[in-house]
Amino acid sequence: MMVRQLQDVQVTVVGLGLMGGSLAAALRGQCRTVTGVARRAETVDAALARGLVDRATVDLAGGVSGADVVVLATPVRTILHQIAEIGPLLPDGCLLLDLGSTKTEIVNAMALLPEHVQPLGGHPMCGKESSGPEAADPALYRSRTFVLCPLPRTSQPALALAVRLVGAVGAHPLLLDPQRHDSLVATASHLPYLLACALVATAGTAASSDPAVGRLLASGFRDTSRLAGSDVAMMLDILLTNRLEILKAVDSFQAQLDAMRRVLETADGEAVRAALSAIRAGRLRMLP
Amino acid sequence: MMVRQLQDVQVTVVGLGLMGGSLAAALRGQCRTVTGVARRAETVDAALARGLVDRATVDLAGGVSGADVVVLATPVRTILHQIAEIGPLLPDGCLLLDLGSTKTEIVNAMALLPEHVQPLGGHPMCGKESSGPEAADPALYRSRTFVLCPLPRTSQPALALAVRLVGAVGAHPLLLDPQRHDSLVATASHLPYLLACALVATAGTAASSDPAVGRLLASGFRDTSRLAGSDVAMMLDILLTNRLEILKAVDSFQAQLDAMRRVLETADGEAVRAALSAIRAGRLRMLP
Repeated sequence: MMVRQLQDVQVTVVGLGLMGGSLAAALRGQCRTVTGVARRAETVDAALARGLVDRATVDLAGGVSGADVVVLATPVRTILHQIAEIGPLLPDGCLLLDLGSTKTEIVNAMALLPEHVQPLGGHPMCGKESSGPEAADPALYRSRTFVLCPLPRTSQPALALAVRLVGAVGAHPLLLDPQRHDSLVATASHLPYLLACALVATAGTAASSDPAVGRLLASGFRDTSRLAGSDVAMMLDILLTNRLEILKAVDSFQAQLDAMRRVLETADGEAVRAALSAIRAGRLRMLP
Repeated sequence: MMVRQLQDVQVTVVGLGLMGGSLAAALRGQCRTVTGVARRAETVDAALARGLVDRATVDLAGGVSGADVVVLATPVRTILHQIAEIGPLLPDGCLLLDLGSTKTEIVNAMALLPEHVQPLGGHPMCGKESSGPEAADPALYRSRTFVLCPLPRTSQPALALAVRLVGAVGAHPLLLDPQRHDSLVATASHLPYLLACALVATAGTAASSDPAVGRLLASGFRDTSRLAGSDVAMMLDILLTNRLEILKAVDSFQAQLDAMRRVLETADGEAVRAALSAIRAGRLRMLP
């Protein structure tokens, strides 16, 4: 089987929020057609008005009819429901890719799809605080890592088509096993979210005994707590579908914070300086 | 005693990094003269070249001679040394203000200054990741809270002059007791720094068993860990001079994180959603 050229394929993006809308906009013009599917008519109208898609509909069956690639760009537990129902609607050989933030449960669900479907787990490492089609930005994926989790049944041509699609939006594909992905993002993404939440809760407790704390919140607090402003429905699905890996990451973090607490408790200036310097250098290596 | 008009006073800023350089630049033109004092000749040259000050010198005694206001804009433990030495150099009635991030130890040191000096603790709630006179920005203080910690001996005219100075750089004065300030900033600033550090350490541990974690670090991790890139010398002084309040804030945070961990452990979706929603709403109230 030949790998399809991107300009020959019909792509349907299901979910036209920040992630789906941005992907559609980045692909538009590079594929034969980009169709959008949304639950609400207002989202369809907004996506058309902003030119994110060639056409859009609230009808899932109509939207995926004739598609070579279908991308599920909804919250994780919605993706799980959609995978369970979409199989019979998909054309023969159709690549079904998702953009969900956790992968083990999704790839397990994909394994149950009818044989005529080519399933592939996906997770682009990008996002922003704002959401909805209004926030969509065709540059969102540029230079970002785009994780792909092939199943044993995923054909090489289907994977190769997905790699072209990832390249077309400017991202870098990274093939990972879904369990490994979930363990890594527990540390890289989900732990930072919980820390931001616990920091806000701590400041809330402080504010209940002294409201002046609100006047002392500067850019450091704002940045460290930013993720606590994330969409709750999206984060809830992530936490519930990656619970065990996240609990492990929390344990690992608590051990690190305990260690820092102990160093500070000694008031040994040189030991504190050494710990802070090593961490600062480590961050520069991680995020050059 | 009359409150001095700002245009009549001679201000000397000791330390021409981000904070001191920005303050000098914001005051220049609004005071009779703004003099800068730095330890290194290159800093003096850079401040003059960037037009941050009217004049600059490496000579502390010469720089503060004739000053109506002297502002110490160095790291906290340097401020403590400077307070111990600067008294005899200051003109009669001179206001000595500092910009240090912790206040109890500084205000205690100020209480020992010779009687002819008018001391006042200060802490503007602003900053940025970059440092040095190159990063100085006259808009840095605009719309920010500027904490002032008067001593029992601080005269009303001296405090009123400081309030004018704070207003002249666009900041909002907030009078606080030094212990209360230190307790509040432990939660608002120093805790976020330690969380960022412990997060980087956790990711470092994860990376040592699987380096792929580095490819999955996206904007969420970057923002949550940003403070771990702060200047180590500055942060070391802060941690060592506000140790007990910071340890209390860490304990409070650990209790909050434990509580979140327990809710997640139950896998009770509605309980998790309620906790995340309350925190998200709390952050919106704190940071509108």
